[in-house]
Amino acid sequence: MILEKYLSKKGKHLENNVDLSAGTIAWGLRAKKRVKESSDFINATTGTATEDNGRLMVLPTLYDELRQLTGDQLFAYANMRGLNTFVQAWKKDTLESYPSDLRKKTETLSTLPVTACGGLTGGLMLAGQIFFDKGDTLLAPNTRWGNVDNVFFKNQQLKEIPYKLVDQEGNLSLSNLNDKLIECQKTETKVGVYLNFPNNPSGISPTLGQIKELQETLEKITVPTVLFLDDAYENYCYEADVVGHSIFPYLVGLNDNVITVKIDGVSKRYCAYGARLGTMTVGFGSERDEEKKAQVRELMAKAARTNTSSAPRGIQEALTNVLTDERKNKQIKNEKSRNLNILSRRYKLIKKLGEEITSEVLKPVKFNSGFFGYYLIKSQQSAIEISTNLLKKGLGTVPFVNTSNDLNGIRVAFCSISEENIPKAFDILYSTS
Amino acid sequence: MILEKYLSKKGKHLENNVDLSAGTIAWGLRAKKRVKESSDFINATTGTATEDNGRLMVLPTLYDELRQLTGDQLFAYANMRGLNTFVQAWKKDTLESYPSDLRKKTETLSTLPVTACGGLTGGLMLAGQIFFDKGDTLLAPNTRWGNVDNVFFKNQQLKEIPYKLVDQEGNLSLSNLNDKLIECQKTETKVGVYLNFPNNPSGISPTLGQIKELQETLEKITVPTVLFLDDAYENYCYEADVVGHSIFPYLVGLNDNVITVKIDGVSKRYCAYGARLGTMTVGFGSERDEEKKAQVRELMAKAARTNTSSAPRGIQEALTNVLTDERKNKQIKNEKSRNLNILSRRYKLIKKLGEEITSEVLKPVKFNSGFFGYYLIKSQQSAIEISTNLLKKGLGTVPFVNTSNDLNGIRVAFCSISEENIPKAFDILYSTS
Repeated sequence: MILEKYLSKKGKHLENNVDLSAGTIAWGLRAKKRVKESSDFINATTGTATEDNGRLMVLPTLYDELRQLTGDQLFAYANMRGLNTFVQAWKKDTLESYPSDLRKKTETLSTLPVTACGGLTGGLMLAGQIFFDKGDTLLAPNTRWGNVDNVFFKNQQLKEIPYKLVDQEGNLSLSNLNDKLIECQKTETKVGVYLNFPNNPSGISPTLGQIKELQETLEKITVPTVLFLDDAYENYCYEADVVGHSIFPYLVGLNDNVITVKIDGVSKRYCAYGARLGTMTVGFGSERDEEKKAQVRELMAKAARTNTSSAPRGIQEALTNVLTDERKNKQIKNEKSRNLNILSRRYKLIKKLGEEITSEVLKPVKFNSGFFGYYLIKSQQSAIEISTNLLKKGLGTVPFVNTSNDLNGIRVAFCSISEENIPKAFDILYSTS
Repeated sequence: MILEKYLSKKGKHLENNVDLSAGTIAWGLRAKKRVKESSDFINATTGTATEDNGRLMVLPTLYDELRQLTGDQLFAYANMRGLNTFVQAWKKDTLESYPSDLRKKTETLSTLPVTACGGLTGGLMLAGQIFFDKGDTLLAPNTRWGNVDNVFFKNQQLKEIPYKLVDQEGNLSLSNLNDKLIECQKTETKVGVYLNFPNNPSGISPTLGQIKELQETLEKITVPTVLFLDDAYENYCYEADVVGHSIFPYLVGLNDNVITVKIDGVSKRYCAYGARLGTMTVGFGSERDEEKKAQVRELMAKAARTNTSSAPRGIQEALTNVLTDERKNKQIKNEKSRNLNILSRRYKLIKKLGEEITSEVLKPVKFNSGFFGYYLIKSQQSAIEISTNLLKKGLGTVPFVNTSNDLNGIRVAFCSISEENIPKAFDILYSTS
């Protein structure tokens, strides 16, 4: 092993267990290489929304604002908790994304956010270390993003209890999570749960009925339980029967043995992936006074300070200006709606194509939200093999295989295919035999 | 304790041991409050260089470049190792900051950098976890920045062996470090050393003679030793007899039991503190082939990926454009020289004033570099008490007290006082009785 005599136990574990050539980023690099070789190659690997012309979808109001900042606003340090104006504006923005009857309750039952440097990943990392030590139990869905494994299982070395979020029929189900949560009450002294809706890679979000069942389970919890709610793709929903916003309001106020850390950020909410700004908000099982809420927030800030000191400033300044100016806020919301419409059209088209065809090999899950379509493999072939073949045929996809969970499928990022190219991408995908 | 039943051991340790109201940032906030109350208050708390008019010193070429980036350049994800163009340009920029006869050797003996999200702090955190586990030994100087404690001792819970970098006479000495290093060979199986020149808070850098003594010690090392070289303030030097650049070239190629991680970033080098971009470069004891160097770099990238995913993109794009364009590179170097001249004038003035006076209470250390002057307390008073009094009298400073090391002093950030205000700041400082 490289540098073996110098490495920590964690350093050795990372060296042995993290495979940088296996994840979404590595598949993305392979696809980018193919795009250079062949101009009609379709790259559906990347979890960033692009315009039909292939450029990144950017919100012009935010872009313009960022370019108008002063040197001080761009380059000075931000407060380690986040700029106060920013976290206030972000909290308001988040609350306004919920139905109006859920806002007051959610505000009362949660802290002000703390910024996390490193975007959503940074937020997961900080929250993970505050609540769990190596060997502690984390329930994680069978369909999940590779960096969940990297942060929680490969870096922090938590113990995984898997739950089945997507079944073999391609349906979302929380019943396995509910069962596992009840089981854990007998064996564990503390439990963590990773939740992510719209889910990456499956593009699935739950209905209100499914959330109600989860609430009933959470009300019965008797051991301290921390929910990590990864809200990266919140509000990207395309169907009326699913919860179209973060489920955070449904997870607070249920039980004094359950707290929820909502982890979100500018990456997808404001199409600013490379800005590396996440936030963490703690929600409680019952009301806390302002002093207690401030203490919890300080604890989150202690983790931020001792890992990354503070988060990038420019993006905080720019977004504050946009969100607190009525005209600009309205404008950026219009820009977001326009983008959501584009994604929605792509979603509807790829969804329809999947419903019109049956295949011996592929079965689309019932995706309804987010940036991705996800296709289960019905045959014995490995998703990795299929994605490798698709790469040759002109389509970049990312295989998501989780053998311990019988999960074997392919993620197609419709967020980064033009509507025009979707039929062609679909044809290549279904040419898989 | 807040949320006690939910917290990890680390979460509890952070809650009990990290004091966010004690550090430089908290003293900075106190001073900022006083500035609002009284327009002639002098704030010498902040480790960021400012113009005489109080605005942040910004490099116009970088500022202009950042504002000209496209949406893709600002907002897309960067490669987790750093943009390839950026890390290449950064390595070249670093090598060019060394005397020409040291460049080739240093290039041969080190990796390409990997970006660290979270600036220098992020780099320390990532390097720390790759090489050391809780309880492992780290030698740390008596004069050090508060976040060194936060990252290594309060978060990662390494075991501190202190070394005296600044003695009671205010001189820099590496002899205590050399002694401790030799002692450690008998008792430890692996050793870490934190080095930081120009030092924060003491403003001290070593001479070449002192470095040579350190080299002689390092050549005798028999147990695996990792040097963390915090180069935040590299190249801010004001005296001809000290090493005016990073000492990294002097730490590589000495001994196959010693590796060095050079941690630097844009914060001070390009006056972009709030951009949160650091880099980590590993230097070896003897030559390694490119494949081995690439493997070591991948290991650093594994740590980056599993903590923060990737680093901010816009600043990487902008700096790449500046550094790879001959005209812009020359221009930004001129801007840096102009700033260094301003800081040098402030340094010379505050230094001269300290030499012209003797005090019962204060004794300036022999600072010669960086952003700070540091004043030891000769009396029994605590630096905290004195800084509190100075705050009332019109001067914001930061007390650095390390009782386990007999260190008790006050940091004065001349980087953020106008030349005109230095005599007044000095008078207030020396009015301490």
